[in-house]
Amino acid sequence: MDSKQFKEAATSTIDEIITYFETLPQRDVVSSVTPGYLRPLLAPSAPAEGEPWSLIQSDLESKILPGITHWSHPGFHAFFPCATSYPSILGELYSSALSGACFNWICSPAVTELETIVLDWLSQLLGLPSCYLSTGPTNGGGVIQGSASEAVLTAMVAAREKYLLETIPSDLSEEEREDAIALKRAKMVALATTATHSSTKKAALILGVRFVTIPVTAATNYSLTAPALSSTLSSLRARGLEPFFLTATLGTTDTCAVDDFAGITSSLSTSPFPPGTPGEIWVHIDAAYAGAALVLPEVQSSTKISLIEKFHSFDMNMHKWLLTNFDASCLFVRDRKWFVQALSVNQAVYGNSASAGGLVTDYREWQIPLGRRFRSLKIWFVLRSYGVKGLQEYITRTAKIGEEFAEWVNEKKDLFEVLTGPSFALTVFRMTGKDEEERNERTKKLAEKINASGKIWITSTVLDGRYAIRFMTGVARTEREHVKAAFGVICEAAEGIVKGE
Amino acid sequence: MDSKQFKEAATSTIDEIITYFETLPQRDVVSSVTPGYLRPLLAPSAPAEGEPWSLIQSDLESKILPGITHWSHPGFHAFFPCATSYPSILGELYSSALSGACFNWICSPAVTELETIVLDWLSQLLGLPSCYLSTGPTNGGGVIQGSASEAVLTAMVAAREKYLLETIPSDLSEEEREDAIALKRAKMVALATTATHSSTKKAALILGVRFVTIPVTAATNYSLTAPALSSTLSSLRARGLEPFFLTATLGTTDTCAVDDFAGITSSLSTSPFPPGTPGEIWVHIDAAYAGAALVLPEVQSSTKISLIEKFHSFDMNMHKWLLTNFDASCLFVRDRKWFVQALSVNQAVYGNSASAGGLVTDYREWQIPLGRRFRSLKIWFVLRSYGVKGLQEYITRTAKIGEEFAEWVNEKKDLFEVLTGPSFALTVFRMTGKDEEERNERTKKLAEKINASGKIWITSTVLDGRYAIRFMTGVARTEREHVKAAFGVICEAAEGIVKGE
Repeated sequence: MDSKQFKEAATSTIDEIITYFETLPQRDVVSSVTPGYLRPLLAPSAPAEGEPWSLIQSDLESKILPGITHWSHPGFHAFFPCATSYPSILGELYSSALSGACFNWICSPAVTELETIVLDWLSQLLGLPSCYLSTGPTNGGGVIQGSASEAVLTAMVAAREKYLLETIPSDLSEEEREDAIALKRAKMVALATTATHSSTKKAALILGVRFVTIPVTAATNYSLTAPALSSTLSSLRARGLEPFFLTATLGTTDTCAVDDFAGITSSLSTSPFPPGTPGEIWVHIDAAYAGAALVLPEVQSSTKISLIEKFHSFDMNMHKWLLTNFDASCLFVRDRKWFVQALSVNQAVYGNSASAGGLVTDYREWQIPLGRRFRSLKIWFVLRSYGVKGLQEYITRTAKIGEEFAEWVNEKKDLFEVLTGPSFALTVFRMTGKDEEERNERTKKLAEKINASGKIWITSTVLDGRYAIRFMTGVARTEREHVKAAFGVICEAAEGIVKGE
Repeated sequence: MDSKQFKEAATSTIDEIITYFETLPQRDVVSSVTPGYLRPLLAPSAPAEGEPWSLIQSDLESKILPGITHWSHPGFHAFFPCATSYPSILGELYSSALSGACFNWICSPAVTELETIVLDWLSQLLGLPSCYLSTGPTNGGGVIQGSASEAVLTAMVAAREKYLLETIPSDLSEEEREDAIALKRAKMVALATTATHSSTKKAALILGVRFVTIPVTAATNYSLTAPALSSTLSSLRARGLEPFFLTATLGTTDTCAVDDFAGITSSLSTSPFPPGTPGEIWVHIDAAYAGAALVLPEVQSSTKISLIEKFHSFDMNMHKWLLTNFDASCLFVRDRKWFVQALSVNQAVYGNSASAGGLVTDYREWQIPLGRRFRSLKIWFVLRSYGVKGLQEYITRTAKIGEEFAEWVNEKKDLFEVLTGPSFALTVFRMTGKDEEERNERTKKLAEKINASGKIWITSTVLDGRYAIRFMTGVARTEREHVKAAFGVICEAAEGIVKGE
């Protein structure tokens, strides 16, 4: 494909993309293909000779698009959003042209420096304490990860290394030290709550440390509180185990609960290893989705985000509720040396004078992979194109629609019961019924009926044995009118279920 | 940014990208900015109001581009290539519009199915044994990872789980089992050679298992052979340690050495835990860069790739030497259940009937992260646009230029000594001199002088204490004439050094 052919192909791709977004509402939100649909449609192997773009593009339209579930569809109310926007697409476009494996500063200084700068911008915008700024008092800073799972894994690796460094005597022989580490590792526990995202469990599994969940229930609105944390810590320590890591959440997956940061701080302060002392518990804040709402000063204050100053790392995904393409998981750490000392692996071929001089950041030492894409470009484009006000308006608008939805659900007390929310554009509700069994049965049936409509997509979950439907309104193209129509679909389906249809 | 503004912005971006590629040779290959150059050029925080695209784009040109090191520049001879191509850029463009966190099949069936299919295409194209096909005899298959580092980490996690399952009795109580695992983990060893990429060491570090390197030297051309492996295995086992994982390489970072697959097979076959028996050592093949050359049947045969049938996983990066944008690391496994049993973490909210039915692949169970981009699209575009012949021609052409370069170096015996290669478009050489000290000093000086020219970029390394220059010719835009000119620069610099300039 030469420049002329590319120009033609790319121009037509841009037209297709615009048409795609404009015709989204006319498509079903979830693909209805059956498993294995694609293989019979494609050749059994790569073609011997190159094929013209026209053929490839027409296959994309006829064979691939029917297999796409549309995350930007106004009827997408499942999980959390996975964003895209025009400025972000332009960022990916430039980034793909400037392709490079930018693991070290010298591999493209702008890739490193823009990342540091836009993550500082974001840190300020979200009202994070100044310790998370690269220019802050504790040598903190931000780094873009692929996903919140990689962020929590990275934080946990750093936390383990920090804990071992702080708790194993430094005067041991090499052999004694290996034994001490092996012994210690077998006792180390990573903590989360029963509402925490599964990525913390997966990270513990990968690290090979124990994983314990702290039960949270409807009584505390599914958020972690001081008594629950203190009680788990005491019981673990009584068994000779050593908790070293805790994921606290700002916006849990099921219900968008926010853990009680003040309570966590006070619980840890009275523990044998209070914050700031050797052996302290690393607290990682998973704000993957709801962290976006911190662009609003009132959310900074209601969630008490300033308290995370005593914690260690914070992660939020711009690719969920902040108009940026997957992947853009923004991980902030209070002291970047914790990452570097855990993840630095040197090899002669990567040596260069800029790195050796210690004046630059080599992001390979802040992450699991070596190479990295130029992902800060799309964040920069989004922050500048929308501006702070544009982002605030977007969050306010979609959260407001969620509040209206919750009101409508609440008004239909004969049919529905709101279980949690509205919280960060998410409402969790279920159907009424004569007993738990009927409520569960009806809600399950309702979820199936709604999704079968093809027009909207929701996900369901189970809260303390109660089957429930999650309804999220954070997608950029979702307007009040779409949600109003969706509520009509939901009511009609629910009425049918009550009538035994 | 509305559709009309996007159309304008994207059209101008495409023009800029074409101009960028066409004017690349006129730019210096490595950015010459000084650390911290960017911060004074940008605002201290995100703008309050959105800014017009014209302003953003002009900042990109004036502030970001000077900080870019150009990996597609014809004078880029450092590390390995990090590719891009027009069809691949189109793949990223579509992918960014169809943004979604496609962790489960239902989240976009086409994303999962196209990935399975194009990785089968690739597996055939590279001549991998049929066990690595998703349709093969052992339930294998491929998955796209972000980088070779994530691939080896994923493989090692799976290997650890497999090893524990196979070697710990299944009739233990929960507590006994935890103790047994803790004990076992402290003894488990991941192996690599002194020439293996640092990602294996990093993976072992993350997992918290021991890491041991097997020394390889110039005598075996830096490749792992049976005697070296057997001797390390015996000595580890004599110490009561348990080797469970080995990374073997097809194209090492320093010299593009290929480990002796036949030798590894024979060494393992005579070990106490031969391939196919419980407790066998998982062999992962890291073919990150040179794996691309397997598109040539003669390379399949010279590297004896068919022998990896007895091994467990194989990884190559299409984003290095196969015209696809970063990231496209293609990881193949002989039995996909090894991934799923190690990496599956269930959460109610991810439940759906397709997954529950067991008829579909949920790639989140084959990787560290949960979410994933639509990365197979660019691979599909590249395979179809170039066709098998196009890819073969590209590899042949760039490898041939590397052979010519090595010949030219060899002809200047007064100045240079070739240490390894040409191997997969990589030649490693150094300067002559009266003794090792002078050779090292001169070579180091030569590397600095070459890079200071701005016109070409090479990396250096150290082989058994010998300072050496790596010269790689795999970049798509590098033609014979560029390498000829580069060789002129190198000779002139070397002659100057000999003359004491």
